[in-house]
Amino acid sequence: MLMYLAEFLGTMILILLGDGVVANVNLDKSGMKGGGSVQVSFAWGLAVMIPGFIFGAASGAHFNPAVTIALAADGSLPWDLVPGYVIAQFAGAFTGAVLVYLLFKDQLDATESKDTKRGVFCTSPAIPNTGRNLFSEIAGTFVLVFAIKGIGQAGNIPAGVNNLLVFGIIVSIGMSLGGLTGYAINPARDLGPRLAHAVLPIKDKGSSNWRYAPIVIFGPLIGALAAVLLYSAIPWV
Amino acid sequence: MLMYLAEFLGTMILILLGDGVVANVNLDKSGMKGGGSVQVSFAWGLAVMIPGFIFGAASGAHFNPAVTIALAADGSLPWDLVPGYVIAQFAGAFTGAVLVYLLFKDQLDATESKDTKRGVFCTSPAIPNTGRNLFSEIAGTFVLVFAIKGIGQAGNIPAGVNNLLVFGIIVSIGMSLGGLTGYAINPARDLGPRLAHAVLPIKDKGSSNWRYAPIVIFGPLIGALAAVLLYSAIPWV
Amino acid sequence: MLMYLAEFLGTMILILLGDGVVANVNLDKSGMKGGGSVQVSFAWGLAVMIPGFIFGAASGAHFNPAVTIALAADGSLPWDLVPGYVIAQFAGAFTGAVLVYLLFKDQLDATESKDTKRGVFCTSPAIPNTGRNLFSEIAGTFVLVFAIKGIGQAGNIPAGVNNLLVFGIIVSIGMSLGGLTGYAINPARDLGPRLAHAVLPIKDKGSSNWRYAPIVIFGPLIGALAAVLLYSAIPWV
Amino acid sequence: MLMYLAEFLGTMILILLGDGVVANVNLDKSGMKGGGSVQVSFAWGLAVMIPGFIFGAASGAHFNPAVTIALAADGSLPWDLVPGYVIAQFAGAFTGAVLVYLLFKDQLDATESKDTKRGVFCTSPAIPNTGRNLFSEIAGTFVLVFAIKGIGQAGNIPAGVNNLLVFGIIVSIGMSLGGLTGYAINPARDLGPRLAHAVLPIKDKGSSNWRYAPIVIFGPLIGALAAVLLYSAIPWV
Repeated sequence: MLMYLAEFLGTMILILLGDGVVANVNLDKSGMKGGGSVQVSFAWGLAVMIPGFIFGAASGAHFNPAVTIALAADGSLPWDLVPGYVIAQFAGAFTGAVLVYLLFKDQLDATESKDTKRGVFCTSPAIPNTGRNLFSEIAGTFVLVFAIKGIGQAGNIPAGVNNLLVFGIIVSIGMSLGGLTGYAINPARDLGPRLAHAVLPIKDKGSSNWRYAPIVIFGPLIGALAAVLLYSAIPWV
Repeated sequence: MLMYLAEFLGTMILILLGDGVVANVNLDKSGMKGGGSVQVSFAWGLAVMIPGFIFGAASGAHFNPAVTIALAADGSLPWDLVPGYVIAQFAGAFTGAVLVYLLFKDQLDATESKDTKRGVFCTSPAIPNTGRNLFSEIAGTFVLVFAIKGIGQAGNIPAGVNNLLVFGIIVSIGMSLGGLTGYAINPARDLGPRLAHAVLPIKDKGSSNWRYAPIVIFGPLIGALAAVLLYSAIPWV
Repeated sequence: MLMYLAEFLGTMILILLGDGVVANVNLDKSGMKGGGSVQVSFAWGLAVMIPGFIFGAASGAHFNPAVTIALAADGSLPWDLVPGYVIAQFAGAFTGAVLVYLLFKDQLDATESKDTKRGVFCTSPAIPNTGRNLFSEIAGTFVLVFAIKGIGQAGNIPAGVNNLLVFGIIVSIGMSLGGLTGYAINPARDLGPRLAHAVLPIKDKGSSNWRYAPIVIFGPLIGALAAVLLYSAIPWV
Repeated sequence: MLMYLAEFLGTMILILLGDGVVANVNLDKSGMKGGGSVQVSFAWGLAVMIPGFIFGAASGAHFNPAVTIALAADGSLPWDLVPGYVIAQFAGAFTGAVLVYLLFKDQLDATESKDTKRGVFCTSPAIPNTGRNLFSEIAGTFVLVFAIKGIGQAGNIPAGVNNLLVFGIIVSIGMSLGGLTGYAINPARDLGPRLAHAVLPIKDKGSSNWRYAPIVIFGPLIGALAAVLLYSAIPWV
C-alpha cells in the first residue's frame, strides 16, 4: 500500500507545483505573471524532481501511467501493481489540480481568457493537427522514458545525482518540444487536472476540450512503449 | 553557542542575498532592474543553499523558525534549543535587511513606489484575502518542510548534493507558488526585514503593513507542522 | 557496432532536442515563441547532456567529428574507428533534423522568414566575416574540448556529476559566445541539419547557404586540435 | 611553474567567457543581444566553474588576487607564491580581454554607446558613490570568500560537486548584488580588461575610467580579508 500512497502523494505534489507554475506565470493578478517559458520549463523539472527524491524509494516515483505501463511491459514492474499505480496517479493529479484551484481561485476569477484558465489545468496544441500532435507526444515521451532507462547506463550514480538528471530530462523536453502540444507526456498529468477543470466551479470557464484527450493517452503510451522496446533491443554490452 | 551564531550568520546571509535580489531586480537605477521572476526565484534558492552548506554542520541550517519548531515537534531538535534558534534567526534576518538597506540606499532613494520599497524587505499578497493568503503560506511551507524531510528518503546522498536538492526545493516553491503571497514560508525572513523597514530611515517609505504579519507567522507554522505530521504518519518502510 | 549505433542515436537525440529548442522559441505559432537565448543555451546544454549519460559508456558520447578526430590525434581513440564514428554522427544529425521537421512542420509553414526557417537547422554568423567567424568557431570548440579533457583534472568525479559539468560547458559556450556564429562547434551538428534543410520540402525555404560550410568544418577541427595539443603540452603533474 | 601557468590560463578563460557574455548580450549585432541579467549571472558562474575544475588541482583555481592574498593571510598559501599568482592573474585577464576584443570586434564597431563598449571589459557603478560602491565590492567579495571557505564545512564533497557549489556562489552574488557595481569582486577581472580597453584600438571608445580602479582593488581586498578573518574566528567545532 505504501507504493500506492507514494504515487498518490507524489503525483499530487507534481501537479500542485507543475500546474502551479502555469497559473503563477499566466494568470492575471499573479505577482509572477510574465515569467515565461524558461520559468515554466524549469519549474516543471523541479515539480518532477522533488516528489522524485521523496518517493523514489517507496514506489519508483513514476507519477505517470505511461511510465508505469512501459516498465511493466519491460518486466521492471509486476503487471498486477499497474492498476493501483494508475488509479493513484490519476487521483493524485486530480487532487493536485484541486489544490491549485483553491490557491489560485482569486487569480482565476481575475483572468478573462477561457483558454488561459484551461491552460492552467491541462494541455492543448499550439496548432491542432491530430497526427502531428500525436507525434509530438510520442516523441516527448520517447525521450522521457528512453532517457530515464538510460540513466542506468551512466554507471554508479550517487543518490541525489540521478534526481538532478531526471530534472534535466524534464526541462529539456519542455524547453525543446514544449511549444508544440504543451508536453503532457503523461496521461494522468493531463486528464486528472482536465477532470478537475470540468467539475470545479471555475468562474466563466470554457470547454474542457475532451476531444483532445485521446492524444494525451495514446501519444504517451506509444512513446513510452517504443522507448522500452528500443532500449531493450540495443545490445548495451 | 556555535549553533546560535551559525543561525544568526546564516539567516543574515540568507536575507542579504534574498532581499538583495528583490532590490537588485526591482529598484530604479539598479543595473539589473528588470531581471524578473526567474532571477528572483533562482537567487532565493541560492540564498538558502549558500548558508546551507556553510552552516549545515554547525546548526542544521534552519534559518527559519517554522522549520525549527516543526523539527522540535518532530523530535529532531531538543525543545530547549528552540528559543535561541528563533532569536538568532530573527536577529540575523533583521541584520541582513539592514545590510541590504545600506547597500541599496541610493537605489531606494531613486525609487518612487512605496510598495516596491517595502517589497524589498518583506512580502505582501498579490490579492489580499486572509484565508487564501494563509493557505498559500501553508502550502508553500508544507512543500518546503515535507521535501526537506523527504531528502532522507533518497538514500545515501553525498555531501553537497543535498544542498543542490534544497536549492531546487526553494526555487520550485518560488517559481510555482511565489506569485500568490511572495512565499515568505518563514516568519523570520519576513518579520525581521519588516521590522528593519519600520525602523530604518528609508526615504519616503510607506506603511510596514503589520496587519499582514499574522499570515507569515501562522501560515508557515501550520504548514511546517502539517508536513512533519504527515511525514511521520507515512509508513516509509 | 554498438559504438556506432550509440553515436548515431545520440547525435539524433542531440539534434532533435537542440534544433528543437531553436524551432520551439523562434517559429511562429509555437507555444514557446520568444523564450530567448537563456532557453536556447540551457536547452542545448541538456541536449548534449542527455544522450551523454545514455551513451557515454557505449561510445564515449562524442556526437561531434571534431571531438572524435581530436581524440584520435590525442591517442585516446584508435584512428580506424574514426570513419564509422563520423558517418554515424552525420547520419544521426541528419535524422534528428528530419524529426524536427516532421514535428514542427506546421510551425515552419506558419513562419515567413526564410532565415528563421534555416536557423532552425543550421548556424549562420551574426556579421559575416570569414576570418572572425572562423576564429569564433575555433574559440568555442577550443573551450569545449579543452574543458572536456580538463574534467579529468578534477579528480574522482562520480558518475552523473561529470554529465552535469558537460552540461555547464555547453551552456557556457552558448551564453558567452553564441551570439557570434551560433556556436556550431561541431561539423555534424551543422552540416547534417543543413543537408536536411536542403533536401526536405520545406515550404518557401531559402538558400541553405553552403558557402558558409567550410567555417563549421575547419573552425571546429582547428579548435579541437589546438585544445588537445595545448592540453597535452601542459605538464599537469 | 605549473601553478602560475594554471592561473594564467584559467583567468584567461574566465575573462574570455565572462567578458564574453557581457559582449554577447549587450553589443549590437550580436545574435544574443538582449539576453539580460539571468544570462549574464549564469554565464559568469560557468566562467568561474569551468577553469575551476580544469585548474583546481594545479593551482587551487583562484583567478583572483583578493582570494590569493586572503588565502596567504589565512595561512593556506605560502606568501612567496603570491607575486607569481597575482601577475599570472592580471596577465591572464588582460589576454582574455584581448580575445574578447578580437572575437567581438565587428560587434564593438557596430555599437555606438561608449559605456556599453567599456562595460564589456570592466565594471562601473550604477550610481557612483565612493563609500557605497566600496561597500558593495566588500560585501560581494566577503560572500565569495566566506562561502568558498565554507565549502569545507559541508563535509566530504565529491569531486565535481564542489565546482557546482562554486558556480552557485558566483551566480548568487551576481543575481543578488550585481546591479550595484557590476560585482568585480576581483581586481584582476576588472583591471586586466580595463587595461585592454585602454590600449586596444577600439573604435570610438571613451574613457577607461581609471578613477574607479581603487574601488575594485580595495573593495575585494577588504572583503576577502574580512571573510577569512571572520571564518577563522568562528569556533567551528
